[in-house]
Amino acid sequence: MADTEILMAAIRGESRLIDAAMYTDLDALAETADGLLTEILRYSLFNGGKRIRPLLVVLATRLCGRSDPAVYDLARAFEYLHAATLMHDDVIDNAETRRGRPSVFKKFGLVAAILAGDFLHARSMAIVGESAGTEALSVFSEATGRIVDGEFLQIRNAADHNLREEDYQRAILGKTGLLIAAACEVGAIWAGRGIEERLALRSYGIHLGCAFQIIDDILDYQGDTGKTGKAVGNDLVEGKMTLPLILTMQQADQEDRLRLQEILADEVLRRHAFAEVSCLIEKYNGFSLSRRKAEEAATAALTQLEVFPGKAGGQEKKILQGLVKYVLDREK
Amino acid sequence: MADTEILMAAIRGESRLIDAAMYTDLDALAETADGLLTEILRYSLFNGGKRIRPLLVVLATRLCGRSDPAVYDLARAFEYLHAATLMHDDVIDNAETRRGRPSVFKKFGLVAAILAGDFLHARSMAIVGESAGTEALSVFSEATGRIVDGEFLQIRNAADHNLREEDYQRAILGKTGLLIAAACEVGAIWAGRGIEERLALRSYGIHLGCAFQIIDDILDYQGDTGKTGKAVGNDLVEGKMTLPLILTMQQADQEDRLRLQEILADEVLRRHAFAEVSCLIEKYNGFSLSRRKAEEAATAALTQLEVFPGKAGGQEKKILQGLVKYVLDREK
Repeated sequence: MADTEILMAAIRGESRLIDAAMYTDLDALAETADGLLTEILRYSLFNGGKRIRPLLVVLATRLCGRSDPAVYDLARAFEYLHAATLMHDDVIDNAETRRGRPSVFKKFGLVAAILAGDFLHARSMAIVGESAGTEALSVFSEATGRIVDGEFLQIRNAADHNLREEDYQRAILGKTGLLIAAACEVGAIWAGRGIEERLALRSYGIHLGCAFQIIDDILDYQGDTGKTGKAVGNDLVEGKMTLPLILTMQQADQEDRLRLQEILADEVLRRHAFAEVSCLIEKYNGFSLSRRKAEEAATAALTQLEVFPGKAGGQEKKILQGLVKYVLDREK
Repeated sequence: MADTEILMAAIRGESRLIDAAMYTDLDALAETADGLLTEILRYSLFNGGKRIRPLLVVLATRLCGRSDPAVYDLARAFEYLHAATLMHDDVIDNAETRRGRPSVFKKFGLVAAILAGDFLHARSMAIVGESAGTEALSVFSEATGRIVDGEFLQIRNAADHNLREEDYQRAILGKTGLLIAAACEVGAIWAGRGIEERLALRSYGIHLGCAFQIIDDILDYQGDTGKTGKAVGNDLVEGKMTLPLILTMQQADQEDRLRLQEILADEVLRRHAFAEVSCLIEKYNGFSLSRRKAEEAATAALTQLEVFPGKAGGQEKKILQGLVKYVLDREK
């Protein structure tokens, strides 16, 4: 099989097992918990997501030489935390939809979205502590704390039209990289591996997440709506300083920079100047420079996997490599 | 010293040490975290609260024979979770003030209140896991999950004007009792005590919290605003079915019950019928019957302490007894 096929088969197969572990948990919960709460949890968790975070936990444990079906009980915690984050994000962003359906916030209301997010948050931490011990919990909760910290940074960044690239990097680390990194690292801890493998997997996750987020930010300008299911230009409308724009601001001559600042400072202009801004980013190679950064991150991710040379986990290594390629090539 | 004086001295002395442990943590955090986040944490945590939950952790560990200043590092987690809950509650209730100051929600906005609550939530769980191990974390996160479940129940209860007493009990357990119970139980776990002491302390906490909440609900009708700092009648305005009202609905004749239902179903009436509703509750002894329930809970709490007969922890036992009396007698 080609790498992409192996990857896709793994995503499909593993995500069924991850879903099964979540269903088991929710069924047990439904016996005692409030009916509305369990309804919201089902709605938010089973939405066609690819289960990338729990998949990474599963792959990391096997790459580290532990093959044990109990990993799915641990892995679901990462989907729970991800879903909790999205529920609160949708409140914060006042988002109408999520994956083509009404967001929990819009469908069930503010109170439900906050509380159900809190519930999943607590449940995810309890699972990690119980399944993988306190060291794994430290990694997991450190990531959670820094995700929040990253969101505060993002709020501040939104007002800063001369954002530095390092602030962008720190913000996307919080947004995507840290939870992915924690998934990989907790997998290594659960498998009982030492610090070298832990850090290699953590670093793989950080770079993978970084590449993912940069491509996401490019797609927000250049994506094919038919494929992504999302309108382009959201980031611009919200005034978000993402990498293509940051790199353009760095390169632009004074006239173009002033024009971009004028657009960014004005909500109405942001809604109507998408073509003009895209054109300016192209002019200064903002997209291709961003893509190069994503490729650099992808290379760095692949390098980390060299720590795992043996035959054991060969299949998992292939899938983890395939995932990097997939992130770079994705059109949605 | 009289019991009340011993209690007050303990509250003052211990709360300074708990505050010191929180300051240490926030100072360390401030070195890496976003400035706005640390500002909000300081604002929300240092607000003149009595630190009852961390105090219970400290007292429980000493009653169980472990006296170790490291307990303050553990104890602060319970204040963190409490503060996290309040931040999200203020968003949910659209609350203007908290302890006589603008709520975090009103002062810093929705986004900040959600995110800072999430941060404290994660931090609290990490602390419990690190300081007291995974068994304590299970107790703690089980409580968190059930607190959320209780809030969902409360939302549903609000629409039910014929609420059963057991649903009320379950809701106040989530609102107050479970976190207090977890504080006591985690203290026993940290001190390395067996299941009998754990369950006794847990049960003490549940009954203490129950008595506290019933008195709170009575004060919402009968409190002296000068002492409580809160306007009376909030629960009625919000249509909350608290114990005095539930017991009255149970006893009332058909005419009075229909009138109460009419008031409860109408937002405008709820704002203007406070005197009438208070009068009806008095007519059916709703306040004195509620008070008797609070006294029963208080007695049950005191009974649990008999598991600890020895001289060791004699002072702590006195304080825990004093706390029960204080909760019953409080006017604010």
